Amino acid sequence: MDIAFLLYENMTSLDFIGPYQVFTLVPGARIHLVAAEPGPLRTDAGVRMHADRRLEEVPRADIVVVPGSSDPSKTMGDERVLAWLREMDRSTKWTTSVCTGALILGAAGLLQGKRATTHWTATEMLRQFGATPVAERVVFDGKLVIAAGVSAGIDMALTLVAREFGELVSQSIQLGIEYDPAPPFATGSLRTASPALIEASKALLQASLQR
Amino acid sequence: MDIAFLLYENMTSLDFIGPYQVFTLVPGARIHLVAAEPGPLRTDAGVRMHADRRLEEVPRADIVVVPGSSDPSKTMGDERVLAWLREMDRSTKWTTSVCTGALILGAAGLLQGKRATTHWTATEMLRQFGATPVAERVVFDGKLVIAAGVSAGIDMALTLVAREFGELVSQSIQLGIEYDPAPPFATGSLRTASPALIEASKALLQASLQR
Repeated sequence: MDIAFLLYENMTSLDFIGPYQVFTLVPGARIHLVAAEPGPLRTDAGVRMHADRRLEEVPRADIVVVPGSSDPSKTMGDERVLAWLREMDRSTKWTTSVCTGALILGAAGLLQGKRATTHWTATEMLRQFGATPVAERVVFDGKLVIAAGVSAGIDMALTLVAREFGELVSQSIQLGIEYDPAPPFATGSLRTASPALIEASKALLQASLQR
Repeated sequence: MDIAFLLYENMTSLDFIGPYQVFTLVPGARIHLVAAEPGPLRTDAGVRMHADRRLEEVPRADIVVVPGSSDPSKTMGDERVLAWLREMDRSTKWTTSVCTGALILGAAGLLQGKRATTHWTATEMLRQFGATPVAERVVFDGKLVIAAGVSAGIDMALTLVAREFGELVSQSIQLGIEYDPAPPFATGSLRTASPALIEASKALLQASLQR
């Protein structure tokens, strides 16, 4: 089972590492960290992470994972990346994204007519790619598996592992990473956040972009 | 506010990136990625991440975060790292760990007489450092903030941010990373996992060590 992650400059670190931590524990999984060029890439919060393989070296995989970014626009306009995603999608069993990674799949034309989600700040942008936004944490539509913002990639990966490799594998990984979440607040989604909190969170995300 | 992460070869990627994703969004936080030597470090699942600063370059911080590893023994025996942690702890407002990072704090002598937790596979090891293991996801004891396994670092960081920077900042970050967890199973901790699942998870973690 080959699992390829698309890495790129300015990606969000937890978008990548959440599902990475889950998928690397799948018995027999071969993980490929793929980018336009191998080597260190700066994430949007600063830490550099390494890609191992060039896009053209990994022309197929069973699962592809596209993490998001606080500003995915450059990758959304990178025709070489988009062509690679279209080519990958021909052979994948599952094509997945986390957060604004969905916008990159959309820019590649892969969300046309599909149900999808993304980070809550970007939901309406899905429509320009022909997708129907749905307010779910993990959206399955055919072989697409699309997660909401940042931390939702952990839930996406565990849910997909259960479907593809069975409940015991997924449960063993969930226990292995002790994923028994206890968030301090019940306001981690638009469903439950107040308008004032939504504005405060937008301001905080905007400020982090300018650092 | 200076926040230092101890990075080291073979650390667990989500132990680091969970709290990193949270703390980097704190307004005004200065993040320091500290290691024995700056440069790329291989995590226990394979991906390489970069430390920016040498231990001696960061002799103090307000918060220090020690991530765990599937095998922390080498770092637990690294006297240079342990001396740095003891030195840091003299000036920190909060000394924190995720997963088996607690064993590294223990090896540095910082858990003597304290309540603590760690990854569920390692709980009893805390006693050899004079700590009392408690089955909580995030344990506060004085200025120590100790998280359970891997994914618990997200809860630890958000809880600590609420205490140190206020609820609005923590809630804004929690919404910013859309942390409204929906784990597929309710068996992500020892409290709720069956004996058979615990054995399956141990076997899976053991197998991943040998890769």
